[in-house]
Amino acid sequence: MATNTQRKTILVIGTGVIGSSWTTIFLAKGHKVIVSDPAPGAREKLDQFIQSEWPRMKRVGIVENADPNWVQENAPERPNFKTDLIGKLDTLLPNKNTIIASSSSGIPSSQFISKCKNASSRVLIGRPFNPPHLITLVEIVPHQDTSSDSINRAIEFYKSLGKCPVLVKKEVPGFLANRLQAAVLAEAYSLVSRGVASAEGVDTAMSTGPGLRWALAGPYMTNVLGGGAGEDPFGHFIKHLGPAIEGWKKDMDEKKFDWQETDVDGLIEKVKPFVDAKDREGVRRDMGDGLIELLEMKKGKNNLV
Amino acid sequence: MATNTQRKTILVIGTGVIGSSWTTIFLAKGHKVIVSDPAPGAREKLDQFIQSEWPRMKRVGIVENADPNWVQENAPERPNFKTDLIGKLDTLLPNKNTIIASSSSGIPSSQFISKCKNASSRVLIGRPFNPPHLITLVEIVPHQDTSSDSINRAIEFYKSLGKCPVLVKKEVPGFLANRLQAAVLAEAYSLVSRGVASAEGVDTAMSTGPGLRWALAGPYMTNVLGGGAGEDPFGHFIKHLGPAIEGWKKDMDEKKFDWQETDVDGLIEKVKPFVDAKDREGVRRDMGDGLIELLEMKKGKNNLV
Repeated sequence: MATNTQRKTILVIGTGVIGSSWTTIFLAKGHKVIVSDPAPGAREKLDQFIQSEWPRMKRVGIVENADPNWVQENAPERPNFKTDLIGKLDTLLPNKNTIIASSSSGIPSSQFISKCKNASSRVLIGRPFNPPHLITLVEIVPHQDTSSDSINRAIEFYKSLGKCPVLVKKEVPGFLANRLQAAVLAEAYSLVSRGVASAEGVDTAMSTGPGLRWALAGPYMTNVLGGGAGEDPFGHFIKHLGPAIEGWKKDMDEKKFDWQETDVDGLIEKVKPFVDAKDREGVRRDMGDGLIELLEMKKGKNNLV
Repeated sequence: MATNTQRKTILVIGTGVIGSSWTTIFLAKGHKVIVSDPAPGAREKLDQFIQSEWPRMKRVGIVENADPNWVQENAPERPNFKTDLIGKLDTLLPNKNTIIASSSSGIPSSQFISKCKNASSRVLIGRPFNPPHLITLVEIVPHQDTSSDSINRAIEFYKSLGKCPVLVKKEVPGFLANRLQAAVLAEAYSLVSRGVASAEGVDTAMSTGPGLRWALAGPYMTNVLGGGAGEDPFGHFIKHLGPAIEGWKKDMDEKKFDWQETDVDGLIEKVKPFVDAKDREGVRRDMGDGLIELLEMKKGKNNLV
């Protein structure tokens, strides 16, 4: 339970996959949560999600007309929709200290603040990674007029939830995590489309290879550990292995997945046997348990992130 | 300890980082290992490595003129050097059942079999991922004349070491894991070079975000879990989210790291404060322990790879 001074009243807009997960973690940390979602049955679905994910957690309280001091927006990923919504929220919430954070998965906030008449300086991206109540990353992406006070408060707030906030200093589509993921997916799609490996082969290569390391240290620290014991291990690594990486990347660029409709359908056909052979519910359960155990294991290791 | 019928006599060529790690795992599994390395002090260094990594393991036996039935080659990553070496090994080892496996990190074996007069059909890539005695992935990459018997025996052999062999069906530079890694590195280098995030930010985004999932399931299964409960979750995912991924990838391609010397030096400067602030030995220790604990944790979860 957060102490009284830390306790926020948080308005969660949208209770789909991302919004319901945010609600769960906000409640778990003792904050008061106000939920808004126009979909029929949204409350029942949200209650069900919270109960299934964390049976001991207190039930969500729906409070009318409260004055929130944090908004977490999880509306559909459409710039026009977000522009209207964020504009309305900015008008309805006169207290300029109320941060309006958007869970946008890749659209920078500069694209949806044009109707903010009150204080666009309190608008920023606070982007979780699915599933947000388990995964610790939150990307904080200010637009060019977001105040440094808003940025600092967002970093502190997400830290207080046990999250790892990462500041994205310039707006780029996809931010950091989705770009790293898009890089891997584009190559994964190319390899299977071209018959170099099966979907199972690519998945095994990742989760018995680089994925094991990346769960513990990112690409830079992995380079550093591979760069020897000298003064400048990263410089040594990139000068020594850069040409090989450049060569592989060149071949990848030449043979990149080209996103034509026909390619996509062909790829779906090739992936189908892999999907059909798996117990999806079993994978989901093992993955959920595995994420929790992995995070617990990392807690004792202070040199890792 | 391997049973007598499974026990192999393995010739390890080269005892650098990869070769000494292979030697450790071969010995741990009860195989007899013959080691060859022309470097001064190689034996002492190897002994030291094995003792430090696994104190209870028996010492390596250096045996003259034994007849091995498995060769694991870890020579420098130069096609001409490997061509001469593999040609000599092929001549010196008349028993055509002796597999010659190369730990090449990205050069396909078709590029170094031209001097094999005896049986190039027993040559293939058996590529570990660093550090090989901890990481489970081994990529098996046949050339076009590698026999299917050699491929099958390689898969069985690496499985018997507790490894996860993955078959790469067509020769591509970098194989699977190094291509997936190159995709991430190229984007990581671009993001920091362009001032979008710090090296620490990119690393945190990876190892508190997608890296956590990729340690447990690869990119395809992650897509499948994100694709809903329907009949065709991968198809649903790629049709629904493909356009966003395509857009991010387009922006990444337009702003890709261009590998000029000046860029590399600028990047090294930007990464330096991150490297200097870290306790590298502490990271290496936590990473080694973390890898072992992560692999132990995954063992109980049969739906994961």
